[in-house]
Amino acid sequence: MGAGFSRLWVSLSDNPGVHARFHAPDADRAGDLVALPPDEAQHLIRVLRLKAGAPVRVFNGRGGEFDAVVERTGKDGARVRVGNARAAAREARVAVTLAQAVLKGDKMDAVVRDAVMMGVAAIQPMVTTRSEVTLPSLRRGRRHDRWQRIAVSSAKQCGRATVPTILEPQGFETVAASLAAMALPQPCLMFIEPGASGDATSINDLDGTSPREATVLIGPEGGWTAEEVDRGSAVSRQVTLSDRTLRADTMAIVTLTALFTRWGEL
Amino acid sequence: MGAGFSRLWVSLSDNPGVHARFHAPDADRAGDLVALPPDEAQHLIRVLRLKAGAPVRVFNGRGGEFDAVVERTGKDGARVRVGNARAAAREARVAVTLAQAVLKGDKMDAVVRDAVMMGVAAIQPMVTTRSEVTLPSLRRGRRHDRWQRIAVSSAKQCGRATVPTILEPQGFETVAASLAAMALPQPCLMFIEPGASGDATSINDLDGTSPREATVLIGPEGGWTAEEVDRGSAVSRQVTLSDRTLRADTMAIVTLTALFTRWGEL
Repeated sequence: MGAGFSRLWVSLSDNPGVHARFHAPDADRAGDLVALPPDEAQHLIRVLRLKAGAPVRVFNGRGGEFDAVVERTGKDGARVRVGNARAAAREARVAVTLAQAVLKGDKMDAVVRDAVMMGVAAIQPMVTTRSEVTLPSLRRGRRHDRWQRIAVSSAKQCGRATVPTILEPQGFETVAASLAAMALPQPCLMFIEPGASGDATSINDLDGTSPREATVLIGPEGGWTAEEVDRGSAVSRQVTLSDRTLRADTMAIVTLTALFTRWGEL
Repeated sequence: MGAGFSRLWVSLSDNPGVHARFHAPDADRAGDLVALPPDEAQHLIRVLRLKAGAPVRVFNGRGGEFDAVVERTGKDGARVRVGNARAAAREARVAVTLAQAVLKGDKMDAVVRDAVMMGVAAIQPMVTTRSEVTLPSLRRGRRHDRWQRIAVSSAKQCGRATVPTILEPQGFETVAASLAAMALPQPCLMFIEPGASGDATSINDLDGTSPREATVLIGPEGGWTAEEVDRGSAVSRQVTLSDRTLRADTMAIVTLTALFTRWGEL
């Protein structure tokens, strides 16, 4: 992550008594000696300047959270000795996949960061008709790798021990076809502008029963096309959020907060 | 506003059929000929390059929204002829005052922008013990003027015809004393970290009855001090939001979304 990203966070190490927290994907049980990934080792050695013997916390990205102690630091990275398991931040009981149209510039970075903090299980980046990016340009820009790093960084800062899966970007039609093929009882909610469809439900009128899983579809700055709203109506329930025009880069945090509030999961 | 700010918005003028929208504080009724404030005139003339005869929308910041037509543009600004009243975005039935500790750098700008978009009635910037700013430095930096401009800009973009009041920044103790002096039946909710007080209620357990007014207290990056939590307990109900650590600059948007969801006001 660049300096601009880390600046957004309150450093955990500023709080006395709270140990710095690192992503250690290989940590499985007490006693393990595991190497940190290069980015994490850099953070430990160069930024926080921790030495052998320093107490830290590690999480494996799959729900495991542990005390740990720095065992060795050097040019080849950092190793920690895994200690006792600890309670991580509680995961939501509803596994939400956020299918989000890729936004302009670096706004998708902020959406990934916020969605991970709000507790999504997975993020499906989408290219829609009005997205100002293409699948090949996302691949060339290695954006998927970047979003995965941001997901780790966000989990690290918000206290989640689970790193949500960032799926490979897909076109909207591919996502719609997958949703149609699944034909699961799980709800799929497509957020649309008021007036874009006669059949939409206000989020205030959704019933509050928690599903086990849900998919949330959010469009790009320019909105969905009429064809996309039409296609979406076959695979999702269409929902409107507010009478006001919400900025595209705030749609995910607002939608996830509203849904988790209704489901008693905040 | 600088270019960085306007870039965050979807330009309304990109949407065919949607007319550009301006803040015209003097617009009161059909037939009025009113001058736009200098910032708004600049936007109309220099950015959107509108000429006499162009149809626009105006809002007066006090709930009035109108069709209008550009009557004259020139070195001395822009005048519009006010037409028929139009429906603006619906205002929330709960008048929320957001009492927000001023955050570092320009993060308070984003909080003001988001809080206006989410529908607050007023914003009370606060300096708390762990704020990294002082009241004199806020005055020297003319931050209050800046936040008022941002409030206008946000109302303009989200479709509100009401511009929330930005109150003069105050110290936390002054705000707490005002709340104590009011002794109103309206709820005051102080958002604190889980574990900061034994008496806090989870937001999931707040009852969903809408008050007419509410005050929401949100702390700075470093959190409230124990003394502030204690002082706050005398004038507010203390509420926790999530088991995860939410970034300080997202607390307002998350809290407002959650409360408006519970009150059926989203």
